[in-house]
Amino acid sequence: MKRFNRPLDIRHGHVDLTHGSGGRAMAQLVSELFAPAFANDYLAQGNDQAIVPRPAGRLALATDSHVISPLFFPGGDIGSLAVHGTVNDLAMGGAQPLYLTAGFILEEGLPLATLHAIVQSMAAAARAAGVSIVTGDTKVVERGHGDGVFISTTGVGVVADGVQLSGDAARAGDVILVSGTLGDHGMAVMSQRENLGFASDIVSDSAALHTLVAALLQAAGLGLRLLRDPTRGGLATTLNEIAQQSGVGMQLHESAIPVRPAVRAACEFLGLDPLYVANEGKLIAICAPEQAAAALAAMRAHPLGADAAVIGEVVADSHQFVRVKTDFGGERLLDWLSGEMLPRIC
Amino acid sequence: MKRFNRPLDIRHGHVDLTHGSGGRAMAQLVSELFAPAFANDYLAQGNDQAIVPRPAGRLALATDSHVISPLFFPGGDIGSLAVHGTVNDLAMGGAQPLYLTAGFILEEGLPLATLHAIVQSMAAAARAAGVSIVTGDTKVVERGHGDGVFISTTGVGVVADGVQLSGDAARAGDVILVSGTLGDHGMAVMSQRENLGFASDIVSDSAALHTLVAALLQAAGLGLRLLRDPTRGGLATTLNEIAQQSGVGMQLHESAIPVRPAVRAACEFLGLDPLYVANEGKLIAICAPEQAAAALAAMRAHPLGADAAVIGEVVADSHQFVRVKTDFGGERLLDWLSGEMLPRIC
Repeated sequence: MKRFNRPLDIRHGHVDLTHGSGGRAMAQLVSELFAPAFANDYLAQGNDQAIVPRPAGRLALATDSHVISPLFFPGGDIGSLAVHGTVNDLAMGGAQPLYLTAGFILEEGLPLATLHAIVQSMAAAARAAGVSIVTGDTKVVERGHGDGVFISTTGVGVVADGVQLSGDAARAGDVILVSGTLGDHGMAVMSQRENLGFASDIVSDSAALHTLVAALLQAAGLGLRLLRDPTRGGLATTLNEIAQQSGVGMQLHESAIPVRPAVRAACEFLGLDPLYVANEGKLIAICAPEQAAAALAAMRAHPLGADAAVIGEVVADSHQFVRVKTDFGGERLLDWLSGEMLPRIC
Repeated sequence: MKRFNRPLDIRHGHVDLTHGSGGRAMAQLVSELFAPAFANDYLAQGNDQAIVPRPAGRLALATDSHVISPLFFPGGDIGSLAVHGTVNDLAMGGAQPLYLTAGFILEEGLPLATLHAIVQSMAAAARAAGVSIVTGDTKVVERGHGDGVFISTTGVGVVADGVQLSGDAARAGDVILVSGTLGDHGMAVMSQRENLGFASDIVSDSAALHTLVAALLQAAGLGLRLLRDPTRGGLATTLNEIAQQSGVGMQLHESAIPVRPAVRAACEFLGLDPLYVANEGKLIAICAPEQAAAALAAMRAHPLGADAAVIGEVVADSHQFVRVKTDFGGERLLDWLSGEMLPRIC
């Protein structure tokens, strides 16, 4: 049966309230824009839920709502970010990501061409990461009550027996590693937002990290204590979270922390500290000292870990402070981020 | 360690951009407002993902983003709705709901007291439904780029062996049942929004339907073809979806379709058809004729199915039309909802 009188006008059309009605217009948006992009057998079930096979292990569940502005930035867009952000939250638990769900909150007036580009990018990112977008939801809010598009993704992954990574597992003497340069995502978005011409070569690091994690688990085994991706609040805030969860302190070496010169320059121009700037394709690994060299080598052998570095060590500290030894022999305290430097960075 | 200088001022405070920063203010919002309300062992893991035990069956996954306006309505609020909506999407697949994730998109300026009331209601609804909110996310958008609060929930449930409900399973001769009166949710929200004094006794039917589904599965066994909850677009649109998925027609009897007199009156006043109005605590069951009486009896014996009724039957129809015999002996076609009668109803 012919369901719709004419095809969706993806080139010139706009989202309107009927696209969230549950009726014919929504069915057309789903069947002509979302379904072809995300196509897989689970989504094709066409029910209000997706039924997937019984998984072979514990489940990891993670969710992220994405409100980044602007929607497109150097190195990605809200669609690819919505895949990478949630895949990475699963990966940090040592999980193999399997399925994503996607909820879209669209603002009336959003060009369908914009939505289409975002959905295509999201589908490509999911394919590249080997995850299926198995079910979703679309809502529309009136003009001025949203901001183009927000995307909430939830990920389901499976954790192999024996894998046990948690923020409370760091111990004094452990080694702190990062998988690469810091601050790229936040400064790519800021340079776009603030129109910083000189920073136009900064590209977001947005990427799915689960294969890097698999390599790390392989190399460091039970010596790998925990992983976390330093997104909002950056390296400094994430390390403070871990310090608090594990009841330890951290001692970093500033000269060992990799930051691209262009990112450093843009941060200086804007009065920001790159250690507080968000990343979307980097991880922090905390590792027993015996396995640290193997962990570092495994990361450096992976395309997403080429600039990996040992940046410090876990220390006993009842104050749970994160300290950094500066290049000039001094020391400063890296506190939690207070206030908000970079709103809507993810 | 004392983490925050003073407790969150839930009575007088407001959401600001720092609550989405990833830094100290966000940590405080999570630890003082969200975590105590949702408390469970999985959430207490405190990582970017929750790890839960290996489930005993196929998984059901469902997601819903909630943008209802107003946030509070007779019979519920966006918090309880965000639980019921997703639990019901799982239940319609015959799944036992186990876990929820929750993503909050907050607008700068939202009173913390409002957020607190919503989160308390959400927690109560989750407890009542026997599901744990195991992980979540909080984002904040600037004033005028959101609308108070949007909540995206994703549910994970487990489907017992042998249970196989799907929208493509309806066959000519099957019986169509509904679990109760139609249009209550939509008209409760509309009466609030439009300030319809005479309709002030209409209360949303928002409820978690998984125990009703369990009773149905028990009573009708393999005779139960499919379940679906008629939310946006109402009974008419949902039956059209099923007709199309299954490649069948539907024949309804208007006099058999339960609608409360107050809902009917409010619909007439606003020029709406109750068969297109959203429900949040009702289900449509399509059942083999041999098991229909048992299914009806099982629903009527359940508190959420007291007004259950047989409303029609599935017929062979290559046009996949949904027809309704009117009380006056005529017949009308119930088409898909076109346009949007009731924006932001869920």
